[in-house]
Amino acid sequence: MLVVKKFGGTSVANKERIYNVARRVIEDYKNGNEVVVVLSAMGKMTDELIAMARDINPNPSRRELDMLMTTGEQTSVALMCMAMDVLGVPSVSLNAFQVQMHTTSAYGNARLKRIDTERIRHELDSKRIVVITGFQGVNKYDDYTTLGRGGSDTTAVALAAALHADKCEIYTDVDGVYTADPRIVTRARKLSEITYDEMLDLATLGAGVLHNRSVEMAKKYGVELVVRSSLTNEEGTVVKEDVKVEKMLVSGVAVDKSAERISLVGLEDKPGIAFRVFDALAKANVNVDMILQSVGRGDTKDISFTVDGNFGDDALKVLEDNKSRLNYEHVEIEKNVCKVSIVGAGMMSNPGVAAKMFECLYNEHINIKMISTSEIRVTVLIDVKDADRAANAIHDIFGLDEA
Amino acid sequence: MLVVKKFGGTSVANKERIYNVARRVIEDYKNGNEVVVVLSAMGKMTDELIAMARDINPNPSRRELDMLMTTGEQTSVALMCMAMDVLGVPSVSLNAFQVQMHTTSAYGNARLKRIDTERIRHELDSKRIVVITGFQGVNKYDDYTTLGRGGSDTTAVALAAALHADKCEIYTDVDGVYTADPRIVTRARKLSEITYDEMLDLATLGAGVLHNRSVEMAKKYGVELVVRSSLTNEEGTVVKEDVKVEKMLVSGVAVDKSAERISLVGLEDKPGIAFRVFDALAKANVNVDMILQSVGRGDTKDISFTVDGNFGDDALKVLEDNKSRLNYEHVEIEKNVCKVSIVGAGMMSNPGVAAKMFECLYNEHINIKMISTSEIRVTVLIDVKDADRAANAIHDIFGLDEA
Repeated sequence: MLVVKKFGGTSVANKERIYNVARRVIEDYKNGNEVVVVLSAMGKMTDELIAMARDINPNPSRRELDMLMTTGEQTSVALMCMAMDVLGVPSVSLNAFQVQMHTTSAYGNARLKRIDTERIRHELDSKRIVVITGFQGVNKYDDYTTLGRGGSDTTAVALAAALHADKCEIYTDVDGVYTADPRIVTRARKLSEITYDEMLDLATLGAGVLHNRSVEMAKKYGVELVVRSSLTNEEGTVVKEDVKVEKMLVSGVAVDKSAERISLVGLEDKPGIAFRVFDALAKANVNVDMILQSVGRGDTKDISFTVDGNFGDDALKVLEDNKSRLNYEHVEIEKNVCKVSIVGAGMMSNPGVAAKMFECLYNEHINIKMISTSEIRVTVLIDVKDADRAANAIHDIFGLDEA
Repeated sequence: MLVVKKFGGTSVANKERIYNVARRVIEDYKNGNEVVVVLSAMGKMTDELIAMARDINPNPSRRELDMLMTTGEQTSVALMCMAMDVLGVPSVSLNAFQVQMHTTSAYGNARLKRIDTERIRHELDSKRIVVITGFQGVNKYDDYTTLGRGGSDTTAVALAAALHADKCEIYTDVDGVYTADPRIVTRARKLSEITYDEMLDLATLGAGVLHNRSVEMAKKYGVELVVRSSLTNEEGTVVKEDVKVEKMLVSGVAVDKSAERISLVGLEDKPGIAFRVFDALAKANVNVDMILQSVGRGDTKDISFTVDGNFGDDALKVLEDNKSRLNYEHVEIEKNVCKVSIVGAGMMSNPGVAAKMFECLYNEHINIKMISTSEIRVTVLIDVKDADRAANAIHDIFGLDEA
């Protein structure tokens, strides 16, 4: 069996942890598997390199920043192979140039395009464990690029796809994907399986276990992902296309407390006004999430939307700076709001799911401020003070604590 | 004019020094020159990386050690370009993969074979300063190699040769090559010019300004070298094939206090005995320097030789371990000895030079223990207590203080 195993920065933060990972990987190797390991930079090294760069130049070019940052993973892979050597197992480290990890040219935020497998295949055939730098690539100019934060997950999935690996294991500091955040929902339960789409919606909603792009890529190439802990031997959660028949209507409840709501009151009710609002926000790099537009009352209408917590004031400033152009009566910001979502592939063929969620919130006397839905997700905006109570109640009503 | 400028680790050890180098390079660029910069790793970074490796594995594989160490220069070149960007001048950093610095396969001690100039040429044509990682290369397996200590000098000379540069400037913490070590010889004078061969003999004798292999390569490809200080604007010393007509008989006096003398007394006087002695030492990696063999007395003879200070006891052990095979009466070690040499291309056609040196030492009542000569060098072994007095007297007798 060919396995790709990815370990994040905390898993290789020091000598002890490097040996811990090495032993774990060697176990798989000794069981007769071919093993490819993908590593991030050690602990806080990426942050330290960025700080070092900013000390020299507060606004370094992305090209040179990538050149600097790629030293981080290269350090990890070399040290890992030295540890494996001590443990008596042959291994070899490879960076993005050696593998030829082709990416788009966008420094700092490149996308993987193609991975050459010849060198890796050769090393695997020579019975070596192959340890590869995550997060980095090479563009058409033969320059280093990086894939953006969390990009090592994507490296691992792309390698698994290119090598036709049987499995891609992503090791993190949690032991799998849960039906809800265990710190909020007391009866949260670890899922043994989840679909790509559910995982995508959970990732987008801030569950933060897997990098979004890596899940998209796994879905596209049908790579079976396993999310598991680098600290325990627990089974983890399998992410794949189809989950077992006994699948649940709803897989999980996600809470995102970083939302803020902005309302534009008394806009002219004429075409193009929504475009002008969101174009101004986009140009200022403000990411807008849920959008709600009231039906026109007379000759005015209202538009509300949510933004990530840190960008509420930025959004407000953009709107105030453009008041004359946008021509609204006044603008409001509401900071103490949060998003609670349910996600589940089963929801598609069961129209009653959203209603059941709303009923649950009604029974709890929780007011819903906004609603947004996709095929497999329902999100409501509520007061942040009600968030934990809502999540627990919803978790209970859908029976998520039962296996 | 195309100039290659090499700066060592101390010259880029911190932000202030990086900016210092950047400004210096930019001056050349603004004067209309094409500039290629070669950098070592910052300050003690190479030592720190080695320590990091040894903490994981006391005896790391050279392949993985090189993989780790090459991150050092890559860090330097990226930061340098960020500084140049702040100063408003376009630049680009390149590592050994990007340049394609082909070397032999010997990890840790590789030799440069060929350098592709296409990418560098392209960047120079785009009016960029090109900042290249010293000390590193890529071998036929597409793995990183390093050139051994001081290898960045060699990188710079090789680049100058490949690019047909007009000049190769090596910046160090001294402002040029001196007629003698100014800490020992009070009237030591900086040379404005010196030949490759003289420089080679001085380098071998421990003058330590330039890496030996870099001088050999400069000679081979006729690259004009300039050794100068990164801290001052002084002219430095030019190293080239032919120096001005007014050249001196002797260019410099070198003192090497790290020598030790070993004497094997009462060896059998028969063929093959010298081979057996020095073969045993070579196999134990003991570098032997001056060798003196007495003419046979009856059926025995004596062999004396010098080794670098740190290896005297190693040599002794090798000889004692092989006593039965080598069949000598006894072995002696003399630790308080030193080598004093004069070097000068002019010596070749002037047979009286050695005699003048010996006469000088006789006048100073300094006893000569061993003598070794080459075409352009005379070396004597004397008591270390006499070293400084000898160096000053020789410096005076050859008039080295006069320009």
